[in-house]
Amino acid sequence: MEVESASQVKAGIFPRGWDYLKALPKKSMSKIINFAKSIKKIGQDDPRRVTHSLKVGIALTLVSLLYYWRPLYDGFGVAGVWAVLTVVVVFEFTVGATLSKSLNRTFATLLAGTLGVGAQHLATLFGQKGEPIILGFLVFILASGSTFSRFLPRIKARYDYGVVIFILTFSLVSVSAYRVEKILELAHQRLSTILVGGATCIVISVFVCPVWAGQDLHNLVASNVEKLANYLEGFEGDYFQFSEDEQIPLASKDGKSFLQGYKSVLNSKGSEESLANFARWEPGHGRFLLRHPWKQYLRIGALVRECAYQIEALNGYINSDVQSALEFKRKVQEPCTKMSSECCKALRVLSSAIKTMTDPSAANPHIERSKTTVNDLNNALRAASLKDANLLAMVPIATVASILIETTKCVEKISEAVNELSHLAHFKYVEKSNVSSEKPHLLHRGSIKPVLDNDCTHVAITVHETNTVSAETKEIPQAPKPQPTDETVNIC
Amino acid sequence: MEVESASQVKAGIFPRGWDYLKALPKKSMSKIINFAKSIKKIGQDDPRRVTHSLKVGIALTLVSLLYYWRPLYDGFGVAGVWAVLTVVVVFEFTVGATLSKSLNRTFATLLAGTLGVGAQHLATLFGQKGEPIILGFLVFILASGSTFSRFLPRIKARYDYGVVIFILTFSLVSVSAYRVEKILELAHQRLSTILVGGATCIVISVFVCPVWAGQDLHNLVASNVEKLANYLEGFEGDYFQFSEDEQIPLASKDGKSFLQGYKSVLNSKGSEESLANFARWEPGHGRFLLRHPWKQYLRIGALVRECAYQIEALNGYINSDVQSALEFKRKVQEPCTKMSSECCKALRVLSSAIKTMTDPSAANPHIERSKTTVNDLNNALRAASLKDANLLAMVPIATVASILIETTKCVEKISEAVNELSHLAHFKYVEKSNVSSEKPHLLHRGSIKPVLDNDCTHVAITVHETNTVSAETKEIPQAPKPQPTDETVNIC
Repeated sequence: MEVESASQVKAGIFPRGWDYLKALPKKSMSKIINFAKSIKKIGQDDPRRVTHSLKVGIALTLVSLLYYWRPLYDGFGVAGVWAVLTVVVVFEFTVGATLSKSLNRTFATLLAGTLGVGAQHLATLFGQKGEPIILGFLVFILASGSTFSRFLPRIKARYDYGVVIFILTFSLVSVSAYRVEKILELAHQRLSTILVGGATCIVISVFVCPVWAGQDLHNLVASNVEKLANYLEGFEGDYFQFSEDEQIPLASKDGKSFLQGYKSVLNSKGSEESLANFARWEPGHGRFLLRHPWKQYLRIGALVRECAYQIEALNGYINSDVQSALEFKRKVQEPCTKMSSECCKALRVLSSAIKTMTDPSAANPHIERSKTTVNDLNNALRAASLKDANLLAMVPIATVASILIETTKCVEKISEAVNELSHLAHFKYVEKSNVSSEKPHLLHRGSIKPVLDNDCTHVAITVHETNTVSAETKEIPQAPKPQPTDETVNIC
Repeated sequence: MEVESASQVKAGIFPRGWDYLKALPKKSMSKIINFAKSIKKIGQDDPRRVTHSLKVGIALTLVSLLYYWRPLYDGFGVAGVWAVLTVVVVFEFTVGATLSKSLNRTFATLLAGTLGVGAQHLATLFGQKGEPIILGFLVFILASGSTFSRFLPRIKARYDYGVVIFILTFSLVSVSAYRVEKILELAHQRLSTILVGGATCIVISVFVCPVWAGQDLHNLVASNVEKLANYLEGFEGDYFQFSEDEQIPLASKDGKSFLQGYKSVLNSKGSEESLANFARWEPGHGRFLLRHPWKQYLRIGALVRECAYQIEALNGYINSDVQSALEFKRKVQEPCTKMSSECCKALRVLSSAIKTMTDPSAANPHIERSKTTVNDLNNALRAASLKDANLLAMVPIATVASILIETTKCVEKISEAVNELSHLAHFKYVEKSNVSSEKPHLLHRGSIKPVLDNDCTHVAITVHETNTVSAETKEIPQAPKPQPTDETVNIC
């Protein structure tokens, strides 16, 4: 019996193994195809990723010339490896990150190199036996101290890489100096190759299809504001649609993608902060001057997240049953719809004002209207008497109204922060008298594309004294130091 | 006049300059003192930071021995710099991060070194003129491809550093090989020094006061759950205290620190994910086995954040006026207080169950009670008739009740996820018959400290067959593969 069953098992294993082998090419083929598809998707999602990869390849190949090309090799010698190392480690996706790393690396190398040579000279004073002890002690003290300094938030945010390179170079120089005699020549070679590597990275990242962290932060904040607007628009149409057609099943509302867009806003803090950190290292580019108020974007971002938390709470009620408590619902429906629609309009105006860097005050009427609606709602509620009220059914509707009121407050705060940004960053504004009052309506219906930095076909209309053109761009009067021409020049 | 005013200005400048100079030592002194205080605070907040800094110092000094000590230097030669470099770059705060970087570095160096030598051999086939072209082409292709692969989320999360080192080593080896003849010897030296550096880091980070990413993740999730409980406890006491004493001014409630603790939960996603990533690299340690379900912590973390979003919405109402709508408030107050207090108790039990890795089912009665309370509230609302209701004043109270109901749902989900974790991670549980039913009450009053990994005075009571000890620890029956002794052994 046992033998039989064992042979059965064996007979079972072989065909199964054969099936597995037969299926293998198909399986691995489909895996490869899936992998290729995911790669394609990553490239399509952001084509700058492909460009970045090519740029790194070009930079590395260029730096390899230090080896291939005789005259350069004679100049730099074996230290050329440091140029290759620098390019690989320093070249980052955004210009700001690349600049931050290059500058950190260069200055840390310079400082640590000097200190290292000094430490070596100090150590020689203690004789041949004392030298390694003193050097070891100095390396220990400096490495421990510098490592601890990496926990300081300010250093962590801006100079973390510099501190690593500082420890690295100090240890290398002070320790190498113990053996290598031509230390100064080595240090000079190392520094110059690092400069060559760093400069190659900077030049390529700035001049070949640059990816600016500042521009990314700017777009991220604007698109986050728009995501909130999208949600409110969807919510407005979705939650209260039952008044006309109460037959639509509730299940059909689940999983609408435009209602999920705001979810990414909830966890945007990290990426906003790192982009703002890198943006500070960047020179003026496109529409952004050197000291662009990047910190203000973080403030707007925090308020946008606050609003997204309210929306997350609101989202819990989108599928709740609003078919009962009709009397109460009717009382609440109109002001709620109006509140969310005005908030949505205001957010769209603010988003497009950030994107196009124009006057955001067109959002003010919407915010005023939403505030009036809150008062209307309060008055209606104050005057209401509900004799046959189903309190249980009222609670979720009251909650939605209440959260919408909180959302309105958040939107007002966002508007104030965007206004502040418009002053700090000298946004341009279009004179109201010449433009029809319908502009905000136009803005929130279409989707306005931002003017691209590299797009030199864009012409900024700047007319002074003569009012022949209907749209006149000029500085906001509150701006402390108007710099009108710089921005226009920077665009092309 | 002009001369006079100019001399006045001069006369004004000098005393001011003198004042500035006189004040300088005081100012810089106070700045230095502030700086020292902030450094002290960082060390006190987490003393492991100081230990980590000292560990890096020790590792670097040890590796420097490669240079100082003659026999070692003769073995490794100038390649010893790679050991120093490895220590500086690879030594991270947690064991997981250090292991991840060391292993990534070692395997990437090995792979890229082999490929680099192969590429060099291939290139020699194309003659002296073709060689640099082929090498340059290969460097370009591999650098671009590898850089692009860093955008793949899976590679980004686990192998990012490895890919960087792969590009680095491949470029270095294939390019250096063009000039340096003793390439194999160099490669061997480089690899062995990297191994020495990496091994030094791993040994020191594992055996000298180790900081485990897994333990940190475990503590973070448990403390986040507790922060929610703290909020609910504070809210319960704060929001409804007016029923007894309505004279307390509202302003006094602002800025209570225990009500702000939950704010850090909102943005915990990033740190949880990176800790979970590093934890996967760690071997079994303390109470955590090799394949501890770290992913489940991420799931709990996401649910905890969801609950924190509800609390953020709730927090908007803590200062709202609840002095009107007394009738409605009275109706709602009791169930609301009970809901939040039961949720708070359940969360405390769950938090301490995670911390001590014991059975979390003591939370179930609290959750059941909170669910019953929701029904009670619903029934009360259904039966209520409010003739003279002030609808306006009711809305915020209804909102609080409604959000508390949502919070109850969140807490239930958290409880389910913690239960799943307890099965996946083979939590131990105490037999109920022998322990008084008051246990949950005890748990949520005191603060239970987790058993420390290194604390060898801890004795795990494991009694089999005989029931003489009241607390009997045994495996949960659902656990697929019970490994009871391993955990106890690992603790000491």
